[in-house]
Amino acid sequence: MRVEALVFDAYGTLYDVHSVVQRCESCFPGKGTQLSQLWRAKQLEYTWQRSLMQRYVPFSVVTREALVYACAALRLELSVQLMEALLSEYLRLEVAAALERLQMKKAILSNGSPDLLMPLVRNSNLQIDPVLSVDALRIYKPAPQVYELAVKALRMPKERIGFVSSNCWDALGAKSYGFTVYWINRGGAPLDALGFKPDAELRSLAELPDEVLR
Amino acid sequence: MRVEALVFDAYGTLYDVHSVVQRCESCFPGKGTQLSQLWRAKQLEYTWQRSLMQRYVPFSVVTREALVYACAALRLELSVQLMEALLSEYLRLEVAAALERLQMKKAILSNGSPDLLMPLVRNSNLQIDPVLSVDALRIYKPAPQVYELAVKALRMPKERIGFVSSNCWDALGAKSYGFTVYWINRGGAPLDALGFKPDAELRSLAELPDEVLR
Repeated sequence: MRVEALVFDAYGTLYDVHSVVQRCESCFPGKGTQLSQLWRAKQLEYTWQRSLMQRYVPFSVVTREALVYACAALRLELSVQLMEALLSEYLRLEVAAALERLQMKKAILSNGSPDLLMPLVRNSNLQIDPVLSVDALRIYKPAPQVYELAVKALRMPKERIGFVSSNCWDALGAKSYGFTVYWINRGGAPLDALGFKPDAELRSLAELPDEVLR
Repeated sequence: MRVEALVFDAYGTLYDVHSVVQRCESCFPGKGTQLSQLWRAKQLEYTWQRSLMQRYVPFSVVTREALVYACAALRLELSVQLMEALLSEYLRLEVAAALERLQMKKAILSNGSPDLLMPLVRNSNLQIDPVLSVDALRIYKPAPQVYELAVKALRMPKERIGFVSSNCWDALGAKSYGFTVYWINRGGAPLDALGFKPDAELRSLAELPDEVLR
């Protein structure tokens, strides 16, 4: 079935979070990769755990708390100045690919709270609308009601919506919900065993236009 | 407030999962620690992700699927025989401490499905009853309805129930629900930033009787 709109995950998919790794490295030489990996892992864990605990806080808070945890676990001293510098990276990430060839409706569906997400989209000059945040629902991906936000906003059947994510669990959550799903598997990781498969597995966003338009 | 019953998490708390690390090492020399860490991390991720996706499968299935993923990610060839050998370790873990001094009602509340949990408890000769599994609810910790299972089974106010876990997120999920919580922090990890604190933080189960009875 032909997809008529594309919905993009933000962090790691549409926006390249590599600059976060670099900033971690410049703040803590020799520890940048380890810190950014633990920070990201805890950030995601906290979204899942808080969702299940029914104790939502916005992604900006989760992101800050995960950074504090990661620095404590690695015994890195985190001043307020360093913390603000690291968090500010999330407001000006690079866009990972050009999407002009895809002349269809494009949206973002992100865990990011509006305080993080809106400045990011504004700073990057992307022609993407609407920008949807889980914040309205107070639960994180991969809960099905999150993916339903896009159906309500776009007003089209879910099979006609192409969902694009580099996070395998997010792609499979979207597939479980019923979207047509493109998993951007940049690192060549194995498929997560969550009972679903994406409709297509691509190596980069650059492969997306050919896949969608074929 | 005096606690009148104790509810134990099973894997990692009451049962020592170190033998799993050793078996991983004997199957894949030099890779045992890395494999067992990734296996455990994926096992937990899948419980959270499947719970949020509303796609429950029993813990025995999650555990097997996480092992298959971890071996694929580390490019380790997993035969059916090796897989069965590794999974069978979960049926005969060592009990982590003697609990005879605690002459009060003791229960287990575990993510483990009955096919994993019941043989384990039987093999270890523990005097613990009831043994409660999330399987009845088809959702995993730290969802509050899981902790509520213990209240329904023990029929006492939640503040009078002491919940014991070595998994910080599990301890904090129990605290969010309303138990009196003992976090067994064997490794000296930082507290997870989930908005709650345990009532006591102990270095091992051996410290539990003094803490509970004081």
